[in-house]
Amino acid sequence: MAAWGERLAGVRGVLLDISGVLYDSGEGGGVPIAGSVEAVARLKRSRLKVRFCTNESQKSRGHLVGLLRHLGYDISEGEVTAPAPAACLILRERGLRPHLLVHDGVRSEFAQVDTSNPNCVVIADAGESFSYQNMNKAFQVLMELENPVLISLGRGRYYKETSGLMLDVGAYTKALEYACGIKAEVVGKPSPEFFKSALQQMGVEAHQAVMIGDDIVGDVGGAQRCGMRALQVRTGKFSPKCGA
Amino acid sequence: MAAWGERLAGVRGVLLDISGVLYDSGEGGGVPIAGSVEAVARLKRSRLKVRFCTNESQKSRGHLVGLLRHLGYDISEGEVTAPAPAACLILRERGLRPHLLVHDGVRSEFAQVDTSNPNCVVIADAGESFSYQNMNKAFQVLMELENPVLISLGRGRYYKETSGLMLDVGAYTKALEYACGIKAEVVGKPSPEFFKSALQQMGVEAHQAVMIGDDIVGDVGGAQRCGMRALQVRTGKFSPKCGA
Repeated sequence: MAAWGERLAGVRGVLLDISGVLYDSGEGGGVPIAGSVEAVARLKRSRLKVRFCTNESQKSRGHLVGLLRHLGYDISEGEVTAPAPAACLILRERGLRPHLLVHDGVRSEFAQVDTSNPNCVVIADAGESFSYQNMNKAFQVLMELENPVLISLGRGRYYKETSGLMLDVGAYTKALEYACGIKAEVVGKPSPEFFKSALQQMGVEAHQAVMIGDDIVGDVGGAQRCGMRALQVRTGKFSPKCGA
Repeated sequence: MAAWGERLAGVRGVLLDISGVLYDSGEGGGVPIAGSVEAVARLKRSRLKVRFCTNESQKSRGHLVGLLRHLGYDISEGEVTAPAPAACLILRERGLRPHLLVHDGVRSEFAQVDTSNPNCVVIADAGESFSYQNMNKAFQVLMELENPVLISLGRGRYYKETSGLMLDVGAYTKALEYACGIKAEVVGKPSPEFFKSALQQMGVEAHQAVMIGDDIVGDVGGAQRCGMRALQVRTGKFSPKCGA
């Protein structure tokens, strides 16, 4: 294996996943992952550009950044690339009015979006809001559309909270895809557009960037397919059994 | 198209789906589908053998038969082939102790099954019991098993209640399959074993039987793959758009 210096030659920017890399979410706001507060501080003092690239879709960026600052991270909203704001851009561009199957914590990100008379469904990590009633409502909205459009904020299978592994939005997206016989459009990692927007926001080319995450598919695979380098941490949902 | 007499030549037994064929479930026990009480009575007076072959997994057979009798059907528990009793046989044969992700209404079917220290998950149409918490618990049980076994009572995408279309167990099975990276074993239609057990119970060969249902995949396709003839009714979840 090449030395770290060689493997990271020419890197000008670092993209950091948040959940499972910076902290494990959970009761009381979660806990930081050992050493990561210091690691982020060192990165930000270095010559490297740093950006946070998350599929967090249960909390607004404001809430997320507040939590992380409370845990000791030097981070601001403007440094975070997250799927809800990216989805809002797409909705506006395409004149889509979503039925929102989302957690109350992220609803504020959609405050400027017209949700009357829905012509699509946006699904995010709704957590406890993934009730049968809410899932069924989203299903019924899709079944009534001539051309059902389902926009999914990520495709994660699960993530790790302090209390254990938790089902992520990808599982519920699969459920709706199967029930309606459709394919969702994914906003968030591993979508190439999402990585590209993060790179643009930091002003770095793909070959000059490294993505650091705990998800072998969403973080590592997605970044590599965009021409970036990628590192998988052994925290968060990482498991030696399957690497994800 | 051949005349009915020709198409049904040699038929000795009729298998009837229940939901969407006999009745639409819903508030107050549901409503019978026009003409079907009389049709079942005529079939039972004829020389044909009749059996009810359902993927109903939210109610026990006792409860289901009680509802149908109340709606005017001449039907007894012994005439019903349903997935929960079939699953119980499999669990016993293979020494499996299930974690049950099921509706309270069907729990009595599993009364004789050892559910301590689970080594598999059984998922049925849990309806309102498909909460995030219950789904996550089933997911966590599967993720802790060395060889996760998921037994799904049917694979239906949705069914029709009097209030509209409702997500069925298949959608939630897909969610767990995706999250855990596994494939469920299906007990119920369209599994060939399930049709074969119904045929055995009525003492009729596949080529002598016709299946009548509203589901183009679970009823019609499944029966045809077993060598049976099949008819799709235009009630229940039938839609002229997609035939299912």
